[in-house]
Amino acid sequence: MLTKDDYKQRIEAMRIECETRELDAVFIFANENEPANVRYFTNYRPVFETTAVVISRCGEAVLLIGPETEALALAHSVLQNYRMLQPFRETSDPEYPDIQLDTFTDIFSEMNNGLGIKKLGLIGTNLMTVQVYEKIQEALPDAVMTKEDYLLRKLRMIKSKKELDLIRRAAVIAGDGFKFALERIHPGMTELEAVAECLYGAYKYGAEGTGFQIWCVSGKATNQAIGIPTQRVIRRDEVVQISMGVQIEGYVSSFGRAFVFGNIQDDIKKMFEVNLASNAMTHELIRPGASAAEIAKKVHGFIRKEGFGDCLVYGPAHGIGMMECEYPFIETTSDFILSEGMTFAVDSYLSGLKYGMRFEDTVAVTSQGEEQFCDYRREIISL
Amino acid sequence: MLTKDDYKQRIEAMRIECETRELDAVFIFANENEPANVRYFTNYRPVFETTAVVISRCGEAVLLIGPETEALALAHSVLQNYRMLQPFRETSDPEYPDIQLDTFTDIFSEMNNGLGIKKLGLIGTNLMTVQVYEKIQEALPDAVMTKEDYLLRKLRMIKSKKELDLIRRAAVIAGDGFKFALERIHPGMTELEAVAECLYGAYKYGAEGTGFQIWCVSGKATNQAIGIPTQRVIRRDEVVQISMGVQIEGYVSSFGRAFVFGNIQDDIKKMFEVNLASNAMTHELIRPGASAAEIAKKVHGFIRKEGFGDCLVYGPAHGIGMMECEYPFIETTSDFILSEGMTFAVDSYLSGLKYGMRFEDTVAVTSQGEEQFCDYRREIISL
Repeated sequence: MLTKDDYKQRIEAMRIECETRELDAVFIFANENEPANVRYFTNYRPVFETTAVVISRCGEAVLLIGPETEALALAHSVLQNYRMLQPFRETSDPEYPDIQLDTFTDIFSEMNNGLGIKKLGLIGTNLMTVQVYEKIQEALPDAVMTKEDYLLRKLRMIKSKKELDLIRRAAVIAGDGFKFALERIHPGMTELEAVAECLYGAYKYGAEGTGFQIWCVSGKATNQAIGIPTQRVIRRDEVVQISMGVQIEGYVSSFGRAFVFGNIQDDIKKMFEVNLASNAMTHELIRPGASAAEIAKKVHGFIRKEGFGDCLVYGPAHGIGMMECEYPFIETTSDFILSEGMTFAVDSYLSGLKYGMRFEDTVAVTSQGEEQFCDYRREIISL
Repeated sequence: MLTKDDYKQRIEAMRIECETRELDAVFIFANENEPANVRYFTNYRPVFETTAVVISRCGEAVLLIGPETEALALAHSVLQNYRMLQPFRETSDPEYPDIQLDTFTDIFSEMNNGLGIKKLGLIGTNLMTVQVYEKIQEALPDAVMTKEDYLLRKLRMIKSKKELDLIRRAAVIAGDGFKFALERIHPGMTELEAVAECLYGAYKYGAEGTGFQIWCVSGKATNQAIGIPTQRVIRRDEVVQISMGVQIEGYVSSFGRAFVFGNIQDDIKKMFEVNLASNAMTHELIRPGASAAEIAKKVHGFIRKEGFGDCLVYGPAHGIGMMECEYPFIETTSDFILSEGMTFAVDSYLSGLKYGMRFEDTVAVTSQGEEQFCDYRREIISL
């Protein structure tokens, strides 16, 4: 379990980054779907509204929330210094005539012993709404603003022992939840009914939420790299794909398995074999000191050699932690070396014209190689 | 069920708005958490990525997606004219070295018979990411851009018969799902375990998803207007709050009930009575021709008279449709008159220091008054 001190240390680490980068403050934005940026420093995550945390060079940290989540923030945020602002309200722009709200001008001008902010680093501009951005610009018309996402990516990239424990728990629960579901799903059930079993299994084994919207897709829809479950009825002799992940204290896992009720046709079997072989190869290549680009090139080379090059959508693994998909990515264009404490979702996905399939598991880079948090049925599953 | 023609008519209605407002096109943004803006025109909703639809004065409509959801868009979008762009990728900024992507410059310049876009209306800037906004600005350095959210709000505000049918179904399923859960939840269970029962019940009765992250909170946490379920164990003699809603073809419901296992203390009973009376009053006041502001003033006046003024967070009802909370809002500052086809979540929420409670139901304004889609146990519930 993360303690108040863990969160304090993270704020201090970001304060030092401000100092090093000669920024007066960093403004870190997050939303309900991707709360990681703010949850990392506060444990707060918004519902319906958006949020930000501002950390100054002098060490001030303030949580910014919308008008409706004061009680939620007080209950969940480790950082109890909070301000409510209108730009963080729900996106349907409700009015709150009875609630007293703050402004960016007030908040910024008080910081750094009243010297305010002349250089502001922005983190999360790929999430930040235009309305929040415009209000910051209005409040700081003369400030220099720079995008500093890598400062936070750097802090989050290597996981501590506590973080690894949380990710490991999330991975084990996802596997257990899948096992629970697999015993209950059968042909004749809809994809949505299958998702209900996954959800129930995940929560039953202790999930605090999902890591993303769990999906089950079947038949042709398995060629969706990212899927949405529908009312389609699952049939025999076709590929069924489940992708699920759970969340524990803000840390997530990702788990994917493809399977078939009944007979596996030869062409499907061939894709299973190549995919599982590329998956095993990726697991083997993940070790400290390995070049991410080399891993991707080897795995993609193998897949192309086997004739499945057209089925590739992305690289063989991506970072995972507080987001299902976070920096760094193992792609042929990557420029980093794997090191101990990095966590990856080994994500072997092939997308054909008639079907696709994914085997995905959450792993960590150890001092020696790779720790696999869950390897339940990483095989051709015929039921 | 919505047909291709329904979606086509919506695009045409927006094209006419472009013409009327003398806009060359509207750029309509949405994300996974709030897909309504784009789903309304296409049935597509993104997962992990963001999305937009551009509708031009000449009637062109193009769906913009990220690099990973081509198969998803082809399977779900009624509008099959799509382009993939990098700014819509996942927020962790993965690279896709093997995927060919388009640019805003290409797309915009082809529109309106090659005349391009000189006046662009923006819809969803309260969702739109800074990175998308900056890329639009780069592609159209000389264009005039204006915020035009009200154009879409206007189209979505009055629901068609088909839309009402979907919202009604979503409301009935939420009520049935709650009933299913209420028979299974007991003291000693955690809030998260209670949510698992709600989710399972909702999907069992046909939900295609949730309308928002379902929550169960208990004890003091019921004072959270917006809650997050935790590992806290539900106890006897305390307030328990469940807020849930489900989604059918993109249309959502909202359903909330507070209840107690065991004895209801006098102070809690008083809050229940005042809240239920204010709830009944709201339902009674909802009718075509009523002033939204007058409804809010009357209901808040009653609550204040009863001594619960400090427990108010917002007005007695909010619009609902493709979002759990959408325009228009019944607040003391509202400036609209209720009319047939509007749908509201009558949302009676009081937040005290020690606990809070919500009774919430989805309703429609009819030609005569109000249709209640579900009124299951709108009463003091002691179990």
